[in-house]
Amino acid sequence: MDIQGKKRIVVVGGGSWATANIKMLTDNTVEKEIYWWMRNTEAVEHIQQYKHNPNYLSSVEIKVPAQNISTNLKQLIAGGDFILLNVPAAFLKDALKDITVDDLKGKKIISAIKGIVPDENQIIGEFLHQHYQIPFENFLVISGPCHAEEVALEKLSYLTIASRDTQLAACFAGMLQTRYIKTNISDDIYGTEYAAVLKNIYAVASGICHGVGYGDNFQAVLISNAIREIMHFVNAVHPISRDIKESAYLGDLLVTAYSQFSRNRTFGNMIGKGYTVKSAQLEMNMVAEGYYAVNCLHQVNKQYKVNMPICNAVYAILYKKRSPVLEMQHLAEQLT
Amino acid sequence: MDIQGKKRIVVVGGGSWATANIKMLTDNTVEKEIYWWMRNTEAVEHIQQYKHNPNYLSSVEIKVPAQNISTNLKQLIAGGDFILLNVPAAFLKDALKDITVDDLKGKKIISAIKGIVPDENQIIGEFLHQHYQIPFENFLVISGPCHAEEVALEKLSYLTIASRDTQLAACFAGMLQTRYIKTNISDDIYGTEYAAVLKNIYAVASGICHGVGYGDNFQAVLISNAIREIMHFVNAVHPISRDIKESAYLGDLLVTAYSQFSRNRTFGNMIGKGYTVKSAQLEMNMVAEGYYAVNCLHQVNKQYKVNMPICNAVYAILYKKRSPVLEMQHLAEQLT
Repeated sequence: MDIQGKKRIVVVGGGSWATANIKMLTDNTVEKEIYWWMRNTEAVEHIQQYKHNPNYLSSVEIKVPAQNISTNLKQLIAGGDFILLNVPAAFLKDALKDITVDDLKGKKIISAIKGIVPDENQIIGEFLHQHYQIPFENFLVISGPCHAEEVALEKLSYLTIASRDTQLAACFAGMLQTRYIKTNISDDIYGTEYAAVLKNIYAVASGICHGVGYGDNFQAVLISNAIREIMHFVNAVHPISRDIKESAYLGDLLVTAYSQFSRNRTFGNMIGKGYTVKSAQLEMNMVAEGYYAVNCLHQVNKQYKVNMPICNAVYAILYKKRSPVLEMQHLAEQLT
Repeated sequence: MDIQGKKRIVVVGGGSWATANIKMLTDNTVEKEIYWWMRNTEAVEHIQQYKHNPNYLSSVEIKVPAQNISTNLKQLIAGGDFILLNVPAAFLKDALKDITVDDLKGKKIISAIKGIVPDENQIIGEFLHQHYQIPFENFLVISGPCHAEEVALEKLSYLTIASRDTQLAACFAGMLQTRYIKTNISDDIYGTEYAAVLKNIYAVASGICHGVGYGDNFQAVLISNAIREIMHFVNAVHPISRDIKESAYLGDLLVTAYSQFSRNRTFGNMIGKGYTVKSAQLEMNMVAEGYYAVNCLHQVNKQYKVNMPICNAVYAILYKKRSPVLEMQHLAEQLT
């Protein structure tokens, strides 16, 4: 990696959060080269021609040079110093299927993915470490609270960049900061990744409660309990000193669980109103990450056995077809 | 006080939260007698005749016997065992002006007031202790997260009852619990009272930020910082072991700061959009508690000198006529 020269950053994924990352990186004034991979050839050609992503955050002007946007991941990665992964966790294995350990050797890998790799039940850092021999010192996480839509609008947002190597985190943070993006640095990969995964489960729970008929008073109690569940879980998985009230944990939970537009909340709301999982997914025509996350979390927690009544309730409703009304009544008895 | 017999509870105040307290107490099945004081003679007569409060939560059926509702506070207090104070903090002195130390001797006093007594800059427990010689062991606090409107709708809500005498707190909690009210017990009078006061300031701050143009991403960061401010402040004022993530602290902050209907948030929003304090108050035709609270807090904090950038920003905007835009920009630099 050329420490002196311009850094080459490859963004992997074409969704709204990836598009928001592209915007930050190109609005940031540190000299660097940005490359962008996505699977969809038509989208690539559209962006090359019109400088807007046709599918996500389409108001954002894309300032990546046309020749830097490609569907050839192997080639882009070969030229990159930093590889920013931003595809859904469920598609990560598929996106990387032609990428070898050698391809990623010496690269810094950043995960903007909020999810657990299915079947493996690993957070992204663990997965890359085990399957691609990425040292944890070369691994970074980007976390919110940050809706991509507000980045498009240049609304002030705070990101947390986590890495075991906090100097590396600070270096990458320096390439993201803009007038509308402030950054915090953290050394807590596990806590940051798991909190980002768990929040989607609590957003589903919020939606279910709303759908069943609970109000704002209950929602406040639910979220106060949720942040304690997150704390107990991440302290069990990776017991280091952390303040769970920081933006990357509590803030990320709040922006998701209180968003009226969150897919996870909308999905939960439909479940609470009596839709089946299948019909809710068909109706929404998109995937709520919390649906997959709660299953992975359930598997992972078999090892740690943390008391997580909210996650248990969501799991029972989504995977054991338990009645949302009865399950939430049962949950309400356990909250304080 | 007759320990064996029926308890006599006097509710002092005729607003929506007092009306919600009346509903809980009368829906609860523990045998007791409820008395209700309010200043407004017409409201008393209306309730006696029609069994609904004409001004607040008017859908709620009032089950207090007509002869137990009165404008004579001294008389009602004389017959009461528990006195539940639920008038705005700004009017407490006036409401109690004919009440003497002897009148309150031996009574258990419960505060459902969320505010600081103006001029005195004391929370209700301190004020009653100093001015009415109420021992802290006879004093209780009721705290949310709890919008009165949702109690009227019988939406499940959780109250925290705090007292130095936790057995007393449990006894009173037993008279509030219903199908839709669950209760927690706490020994933290100071923390519970101050958190209930501070949350209104952060709701004003949320409104100002929204009015100025900040979005949900920033709001999540603001509230994550707010709960840490609350923690630092109450730990300085009354350093006991407490978990600030409990419902009475974090939950109460969330239900207020994320409510679209909160007076404090609406008031802040108007300030953020450029209204003066006076024109916002005239337009709203009601008082935002956070406006008074931030001044009292500012005075109290001269003693403790806790770093409270959000409260400082709200104080500067409301009392020093600082620009909301510039003050929030300055605040944004201090948040993490």
